[in-house]
Amino acid sequence: MPIRIDASFAFELDQPTDVLLQFEAAPLPEQSILSADTRIGKTMHQARVAAQDGIGERIWLRGEGRFDIEYTALVDVNRQTVDLPTVPALEPHLLPGEAVQYLLDSRFCPADRFQSFVQSEFGGTTGGARVEAIRAWIAHHLSYVPGASGPHTDASDTFIGRQGICRDYAHLLVTLARASTIPARYVACYAPGVDPPDFHAVAEVFLADPEHEDGGTWQIVDATGMADPVKTVKIGVGRDAADVSFLTSFGPNRFISSNVGVSEA
Amino acid sequence: MPIRIDASFAFELDQPTDVLLQFEAAPLPEQSILSADTRIGKTMHQARVAAQDGIGERIWLRGEGRFDIEYTALVDVNRQTVDLPTVPALEPHLLPGEAVQYLLDSRFCPADRFQSFVQSEFGGTTGGARVEAIRAWIAHHLSYVPGASGPHTDASDTFIGRQGICRDYAHLLVTLARASTIPARYVACYAPGVDPPDFHAVAEVFLADPEHEDGGTWQIVDATGMADPVKTVKIGVGRDAADVSFLTSFGPNRFISSNVGVSEA
Amino acid sequence: MPIRIDASFAFELDQPTDVLLQFEAAPLPEQSILSADTRIGKTMHQARVAAQDGIGERIWLRGEGRFDIEYTALVDVNRQTVDLPTVPALEPHLLPGEAVQYLLDSRFCPADRFQSFVQSEFGGTTGGARVEAIRAWIAHHLSYVPGASGPHTDASDTFIGRQGICRDYAHLLVTLARASTIPARYVACYAPGVDPPDFHAVAEVFLADPEHEDGGTWQIVDATGMADPVKTVKIGVGRDAADVSFLTSFGPNRFISSNVGVSEA
Amino acid sequence: MPIRIDASFAFELDQPTDVLLQFEAAPLPEQSILSADTRIGKTMHQARVAAQDGIGERIWLRGEGRFDIEYTALVDVNRQTVDLPTVPALEPHLLPGEAVQYLLDSRFCPADRFQSFVQSEFGGTTGGARVEAIRAWIAHHLSYVPGASGPHTDASDTFIGRQGICRDYAHLLVTLARASTIPARYVACYAPGVDPPDFHAVAEVFLADPEHEDGGTWQIVDATGMADPVKTVKIGVGRDAADVSFLTSFGPNRFISSNVGVSEA
Repeated sequence: MPIRIDASFAFELDQPTDVLLQFEAAPLPEQSILSADTRIGKTMHQARVAAQDGIGERIWLRGEGRFDIEYTALVDVNRQTVDLPTVPALEPHLLPGEAVQYLLDSRFCPADRFQSFVQSEFGGTTGGARVEAIRAWIAHHLSYVPGASGPHTDASDTFIGRQGICRDYAHLLVTLARASTIPARYVACYAPGVDPPDFHAVAEVFLADPEHEDGGTWQIVDATGMADPVKTVKIGVGRDAADVSFLTSFGPNRFISSNVGVSEA
Repeated sequence: MPIRIDASFAFELDQPTDVLLQFEAAPLPEQSILSADTRIGKTMHQARVAAQDGIGERIWLRGEGRFDIEYTALVDVNRQTVDLPTVPALEPHLLPGEAVQYLLDSRFCPADRFQSFVQSEFGGTTGGARVEAIRAWIAHHLSYVPGASGPHTDASDTFIGRQGICRDYAHLLVTLARASTIPARYVACYAPGVDPPDFHAVAEVFLADPEHEDGGTWQIVDATGMADPVKTVKIGVGRDAADVSFLTSFGPNRFISSNVGVSEA
Repeated sequence: MPIRIDASFAFELDQPTDVLLQFEAAPLPEQSILSADTRIGKTMHQARVAAQDGIGERIWLRGEGRFDIEYTALVDVNRQTVDLPTVPALEPHLLPGEAVQYLLDSRFCPADRFQSFVQSEFGGTTGGARVEAIRAWIAHHLSYVPGASGPHTDASDTFIGRQGICRDYAHLLVTLARASTIPARYVACYAPGVDPPDFHAVAEVFLADPEHEDGGTWQIVDATGMADPVKTVKIGVGRDAADVSFLTSFGPNRFISSNVGVSEA
Repeated sequence: MPIRIDASFAFELDQPTDVLLQFEAAPLPEQSILSADTRIGKTMHQARVAAQDGIGERIWLRGEGRFDIEYTALVDVNRQTVDLPTVPALEPHLLPGEAVQYLLDSRFCPADRFQSFVQSEFGGTTGGARVEAIRAWIAHHLSYVPGASGPHTDASDTFIGRQGICRDYAHLLVTLARASTIPARYVACYAPGVDPPDFHAVAEVFLADPEHEDGGTWQIVDATGMADPVKTVKIGVGRDAADVSFLTSFGPNRFISSNVGVSEA
């Protein structure tokens, strides 16, 4: 499934500032970068490092003044999906070491506060069926309201306020999955069908791999219902949005605008 | 410097529960495990996986009833220290990829909220001198008060309340370092001199390596002033205490007691 | 209904400190103080002032050292109750001025965060039927767990954690009523049947008075189900627990113990 | 000192909604309303009730559609001021009952969290000198940055973030005064010199009355330094901004704009 991405964003730095960017499609077995073009402009320094879990790259940039970032890419996605409710959990003692961090609390996902809630609300389910129950609960109880949340909104705020955008839906799903002892991470991505078009975010949960005994696989879940996993292009992953924002500034910055277009090519 | 550790703790699980433990000294170039003995008791499952950044191990345990964990070890510590105020920062674009996560917000360390504070309070300093200024500020403004904080206390709470224990001191130092664009992580450890004797925690910051151009090293900083880095035995590291608690329970548990003795052998 | 109260509590002040106490049954049309005895001990100053809404008294005490407060009383309660689900709301523009503050957010009752939740969960109900729906929701979703909450726990924490004591039940009911545009206040009280026996707290909501057109009355609601309104002895009222704690200390204090006995005489 | 006020604001209600407004200058001994004109437009209901502490009025409005509120007034202010640093505190046991609530925690002023901070930072001062020290501390450590805070920002957030507007300055001053056992309330007001021109907010503290033994008076303090107490026109008072917002909506509303002009006539 070839997906075409046209993304741009602009911001201004009043003084020399370090900025971390992550906005490019990650090369992965399940998604091939057919072509890509990134334009960043003149900077004082620039460097690329591997991003979280080795998925995609983070770009360090140091500069001053206005930046207009432009990115276009054509990506071929070949992601296998599963029938979520039928996939069993992987018991914790079988989890690979690198998945364990995704059971633990993070900045926007204070999972331990929700242990009683998930037990009473979803107590009869486990594994993929639990995740599916969480997804359905979020889809039913939340309203997609741009502007209802901000950069400091965490999953607790969203659970109370019942409104948010993709970031908030993903944080709440990650939180309730971790509270259920299911590893879950946050995925920044591009996906056709996101309305209004924008950078998107979904969750991934780690469940048993139907094809490998005692093995596990990450499965995309989008509680907003807007992204189809088989057409979703991953940018990067993290504990939550703090790890994989498209723009993290280590000093004041003025964000000007962004424009994202994603379509089936 | 040989260090002797005698630690024990007990807890009770009313129903079969998954528990994650991390309490053993980590084998590292700078600390050799001369001898060690771990007793956990009868469990339904047990498994060991590499812990965060490959430092030490996490133990998965599933069981029910009372557990009495006992651990003794003799560890030889040969840690080199630096004269902190003289060590320069490593510019962000030179940071290795795996250090970048330690600049980002985590559950108990909401660093981005403190960018204005560190700029106005410590604005004239950088690198090791900045870290030293932060350490001195914390040592001056906080009081060590057991019972003043709890498992949900984050660095914001401590910054306001001005009281806490080693965990809170370490969280605040990590937070203010990250807000200064200096990677910082949380270190669970054993150290002689901790009063009252207990599991201890310190911070580590990533600064330029005086001996390798463009390289960096982690340096221990203890704002409580109780632990000497050359005598400190690391258990593990993480973004904050959520990653490296000696006991993380995925379900209700009743903590009974702990007893920790650490001495120079 | 004569109710006998025997209450005592002790605390220690390491230095001269101002303390505000409120623990005596309030004389009210609906509850007559048949006899009462209060023993406070030696203080540097002592003063009594009318408490919130003129219900009961607050006692100022300044002193140092150990205090053992003892209070016994015999109170005759003649409270009329209503069939809550049948009582209509009083429209906001008919509310007396002094009731309006009980619609607004307070320290432990951030009601405006819950406007979406109450609308989607209880949208088909108004007035007393809304309050009854809220009470039933809380009774169903919360577990009474001493120790699960503390002095900083607010209604948001309780809504997430699903556990608490009488204080937390009352805060959540007050919060959800205010979010429904129904004035609600917090009531400190004594009541037989509270288990374990302790100072108790319930909520009061302001609804239309079935007997006076365009008038309103306060009605007790206890989401814990432990207190019977016709046997409940009010101490005082407030926006939330911050206003009507039995002990508010303006400086450090060490709480030693309390003992409360309430019975039908 | 005659002060001229021209204020207007507009908002839209998509469905019939109850709204509480408070924006008119309060008639008080220290400020005479020479003339005033209020235009609200067509509503389903309208009612006026006395506001908090009997200062000014709250207006209930129920309606649907767009509202354009216009208010003009000419007010003669004759407020006596004191030399703040010389005014002693009124000891708590001498406080009138109605002032006691202003020592207690409220939604945006969690004062008890700051008891250690005020003791260590301002420990050598009392009464008006303490308030003056708090005012100077806030003026020095905070930056006036429109947009840095929002409707959920409380004094803890401001203490950490070190940025805000008049509302945030007033909340922090109120909080630190209460933590110092000095009653403090939040005052919505109009004042010439506010830049950019807008609804303004200051704090009031209750100190000994230099002219009446054992009596107390409220004194205006503006940590932003923009308002002169002798030219400040009070709208109303409350525990904090939750009590005296110019617009409190009990349901969704879309705020459109406001325009405030205040000048010496």
